[in-house]
Amino acid sequence: MMFNEKMYEYGAKGSAIREINSIGSKLAEEFGKENVYNYSIGNPSLPPPQSVYDAILSILKEPDQVAVHGYSSNWGMKDVRAHLAEGINSKFGQTLTYENIFLTCGSCAALSVLFKGLAVQGDEFIVIAPFFPEYTVFIEGAGAKQVIAMAHEGDFMIDIDNLRNAITEKTKAVIIDSPNNPTGAVYTEENIKALCSLLREKEAELGHPIYLISDEPYRAVVYDDIEVPYPMSYYDDSIICYSFSKSLSLAGERLGYIAFSNKMENWLDIAKAVYGAARINGHAGTPTLFQKVLLTCADDLTDISVYKTNRDILVENLSELGYSFVYPDGAFYLMVKSPIADATEVAYDAANNYHLLLVPTDDFGYPGYVRLSYCVSTDMIKRSLPAFRKLAEAYGIC
Amino acid sequence: MMFNEKMYEYGAKGSAIREINSIGSKLAEEFGKENVYNYSIGNPSLPPPQSVYDAILSILKEPDQVAVHGYSSNWGMKDVRAHLAEGINSKFGQTLTYENIFLTCGSCAALSVLFKGLAVQGDEFIVIAPFFPEYTVFIEGAGAKQVIAMAHEGDFMIDIDNLRNAITEKTKAVIIDSPNNPTGAVYTEENIKALCSLLREKEAELGHPIYLISDEPYRAVVYDDIEVPYPMSYYDDSIICYSFSKSLSLAGERLGYIAFSNKMENWLDIAKAVYGAARINGHAGTPTLFQKVLLTCADDLTDISVYKTNRDILVENLSELGYSFVYPDGAFYLMVKSPIADATEVAYDAANNYHLLLVPTDDFGYPGYVRLSYCVSTDMIKRSLPAFRKLAEAYGIC
Repeated sequence: MMFNEKMYEYGAKGSAIREINSIGSKLAEEFGKENVYNYSIGNPSLPPPQSVYDAILSILKEPDQVAVHGYSSNWGMKDVRAHLAEGINSKFGQTLTYENIFLTCGSCAALSVLFKGLAVQGDEFIVIAPFFPEYTVFIEGAGAKQVIAMAHEGDFMIDIDNLRNAITEKTKAVIIDSPNNPTGAVYTEENIKALCSLLREKEAELGHPIYLISDEPYRAVVYDDIEVPYPMSYYDDSIICYSFSKSLSLAGERLGYIAFSNKMENWLDIAKAVYGAARINGHAGTPTLFQKVLLTCADDLTDISVYKTNRDILVENLSELGYSFVYPDGAFYLMVKSPIADATEVAYDAANNYHLLLVPTDDFGYPGYVRLSYCVSTDMIKRSLPAFRKLAEAYGIC
Repeated sequence: MMFNEKMYEYGAKGSAIREINSIGSKLAEEFGKENVYNYSIGNPSLPPPQSVYDAILSILKEPDQVAVHGYSSNWGMKDVRAHLAEGINSKFGQTLTYENIFLTCGSCAALSVLFKGLAVQGDEFIVIAPFFPEYTVFIEGAGAKQVIAMAHEGDFMIDIDNLRNAITEKTKAVIIDSPNNPTGAVYTEENIKALCSLLREKEAELGHPIYLISDEPYRAVVYDDIEVPYPMSYYDDSIICYSFSKSLSLAGERLGYIAFSNKMENWLDIAKAVYGAARINGHAGTPTLFQKVLLTCADDLTDISVYKTNRDILVENLSELGYSFVYPDGAFYLMVKSPIADATEVAYDAANNYHLLLVPTDDFGYPGYVRLSYCVSTDMIKRSLPAFRKLAEAYGIC
């Protein structure tokens, strides 16, 4: 073979998002970009906060510019790692040091190296459907098997019974993502406690650790004083994958980290295994200018009031139009029940006939819904409401 | 198992560079940093050129800051890819388009995904020793086998006979690195022509492609009007891995690309396989601010006259002191013959007793030498000369 066919499949296969966007591009050419309502892309629609600009300009004036732009440690700059650990300690009552923090090029890179560092042949990783589709790629890429536990229909919380049934002696880890992509659900403290209780019970029964991997790119994106429980506070075998893509609107700059609980047995060895996986992935550190930005901006948040406005307008109007959905407390996603069983058909119909670009949730492991990303302009949302009305009328839901 | 032991080995095993630096840190505490002469690290010692700063400040004022810092295509921004293709076309007479360019977080990430995209079970990748030690990690990580062909002693050119003997029916690719780390050798046009002639002969004989992978982080770092032949101009099945780490002194910002020759059969499918491997690695694009910097700075070069000054001082003085080495035409490395067979013993002796931090070349697959990185201050080089004299005297070479 000239190349690896399995890799080719990962690289060449289309996705619903891509196809819907391809339709959208053609429609934009024909009808104008302002007449296509693109709810398909999870790319922050806000600029970074002013503090990021202040930090960059200040860093660019530091006397040692060689240090600013030169190689950092592959684990990340020690002072940045220590600063992030201190932030976690003060917010969530942990006792981490720089050694518990491994900087990565975003949350995707974090998950990829974490799964590879943990997985051995035959291991199973449990995801809660609906889930971010790239999890599948990272789990398979680590040579492990993905096992799906469906979320609880009606509120999209973790369904403890479904999860219990999914756990086997081969279970290496459970991956959660709250606030959730694609549902916008935030797992309650009660739900997290029930999850951790189950995991402790199963650890005791099976005699080996089950890691709780919390993928948290949306942690900071919550509305109405909603609290997002910190898994490490409830469960010793917790590993957090964080990204600054959404909180600082720096998705393109590739900036995230893995935090390893220091209450986990052999946590430093696990971190070293993850670092070994990162070496194989060609990881040679995280962009240094933006690492340094974190020294002053790690806990800042871009003004997400626009996302809240967007959510409120959508929720109010789609509800009035007869759409069915679970009220989202965080992230910038709304998952709407498809008026017919085949959500893909609805998504193509919505795109072609109403210029609404929605993503069917089949790729998220939970068919029968469409996902709306409301990280868009409020103006677009307002202009799109008549299209949602027509779609509702076409399917007789209003 | 709690984690993957093979990954742990990659993450936990020490290296000669790390051990030598650990000695250096202790010496610096005891004797002062200015009295330790660190020749062990290949981190650019120059700041980026002014044009990079001008570009950053201009980009930070662009009206669409969401686009500046948001997700780019995972392949890289189309205009940046097109610009890089045009640069290659104008400099090296190629006919590439944006589709031939895949942006990566540096050359290491490029090599990792390239090897994974190409390799199938049983494949062999040939490296020319001495070679960058991470090649081994990337090749093994891709599930392939590393095969070593020793360079020609005396000038460190590719030894065509050694390479011929290394090629088998399982050979998938040959990896070259010129200007070379650790030798500083630049393969001559004659040497590259002989290499390509051999590869064509073997392709015909074996009936399958043998890819020529050219790792080029040091392409721009050459002295005295030395020309570095562009492999794509001599061989159709060429793939280039480039990095801006050294040319723009942006090693920490993680910026590089893969260029696929469009004369290669199925080149777009190969690129897609590489993209699939990148997905598995959690690659979600290359830092966007610095991608945009490339639109104006891709062909700029930091002022490398300091490296040339450093080389000239070292070459002249070490020669006078009786040291034996091959004159380096590029990169910022000098590989000096160890006065005794065991270069590791010399390196420890040099560190402990003369405060000279040198790297034995055993890890580069070519024992019997020490590598000096001269990306350091000229002042440090001058101050270190008495130490080199004492070392030469201790081993009776002067």
